[in-house]
Amino acid sequence: MVPEARPPRMGEYPDGTVLTSTRGDAAIDRATHAARRLIDALLRADRDGTDLSGVAERLESVVDDLDAQAPAVQDRLVDMWSGEGITRHDPVTGPENAIAPPLTLSGRADGSVDGEVTMTIPYQGPPTCVHGGVSALLLDHTLGVANSWAGRDGMTAQLTLQYHRPTPLFRALTVSARQERTEGRKIWTVGEIRDDEGQLCVSAEGLFIDKKVPRPR
Amino acid sequence: MVPEARPPRMGEYPDGTVLTSTRGDAAIDRATHAARRLIDALLRADRDGTDLSGVAERLESVVDDLDAQAPAVQDRLVDMWSGEGITRHDPVTGPENAIAPPLTLSGRADGSVDGEVTMTIPYQGPPTCVHGGVSALLLDHTLGVANSWAGRDGMTAQLTLQYHRPTPLFRALTVSARQERTEGRKIWTVGEIRDDEGQLCVSAEGLFIDKKVPRPR
Repeated sequence: MVPEARPPRMGEYPDGTVLTSTRGDAAIDRATHAARRLIDALLRADRDGTDLSGVAERLESVVDDLDAQAPAVQDRLVDMWSGEGITRHDPVTGPENAIAPPLTLSGRADGSVDGEVTMTIPYQGPPTCVHGGVSALLLDHTLGVANSWAGRDGMTAQLTLQYHRPTPLFRALTVSARQERTEGRKIWTVGEIRDDEGQLCVSAEGLFIDKKVPRPR
Repeated sequence: MVPEARPPRMGEYPDGTVLTSTRGDAAIDRATHAARRLIDALLRADRDGTDLSGVAERLESVVDDLDAQAPAVQDRLVDMWSGEGITRHDPVTGPENAIAPPLTLSGRADGSVDGEVTMTIPYQGPPTCVHGGVSALLLDHTLGVANSWAGRDGMTAQLTLQYHRPTPLFRALTVSARQERTEGRKIWTVGEIRDDEGQLCVSAEGLFIDKKVPRPR
């Protein structure tokens, strides 16, 4: 699917504009959603009573069928990065990436972006808590989307995370970010994760540099 | 599977001791490995010529079968955290977690830990590069394992990442870490990711606090 011509920017688009790709009825979206459920189901599965060998075989068979018709990786990368705008494959928001929880982010009129997400066992670090590195992943990505919404984005140069309290699994978390200022090619952006009672779990400060990695062609 | 009684520590175990769970022949390991291949295959798949609706149905059927016999989440969490030592379910090294690349880490006699890993399309941020947040995830976890190897670990309180150059996909990366010092309950640990030419891609500094989240019972 070709992304939109340019990602939405604050001022040009209304409060509440969805800034990430959302899951649609396309077969790839449905298959990826099933794979996402599978990751979770394997971690929750009965280790003894279930025919896990049979499951392994059924999954290998699906992968073999997919691989038999897959294009060369380089061609797929070119296709993945064609067009401009919102990608569908990233590991945080991508409806075509089973690793993504996925997080959906909306742009606000005040320049911030935010979204709600409930994390489950695949994202666990300490018992019943989100892995600190997964919180870093959510925040790095959300800071990047805030930059895009502000109209100026780039590559992460430095990211500092403060962990204020454990971030719970199984509860709706709010992830938010906002670009603070720019100076030449430097961009400073902040963000945070709060639990469903509004308590601050993790905060982040990022320095980004306005440059891009070339796209595959 | 019940983890070992206590994670290995430097001084008590030899140089090269593997500190993470490795994939075995157990059916759950094989099924999870197939799911890991599936995540990648879905991102590489031909979007048009493949019967992705059929794939979605086959995957839904597997998930339904797993869910039909799955224990209650709370019981599964208790089981997952029983015993002491190396877990098998975390999102970085866990052979039972399809999100994990997985990374295997070894302890060194000098107190450091390291491992090699090649990242693929599911972990992509910028074109053909590892997502900055994924690098943060790898490093946060590796710093934690370095703390365990040093005999003193805890929860991440602060993590600072410096991104020196883009981290490439499809090339063997070396992830390493070492505990620097402790003071009371505070633990300082550093780590880095280098590419297959030894170039520094990402470095990390973490402050950890020696405390634990209670285990589910």
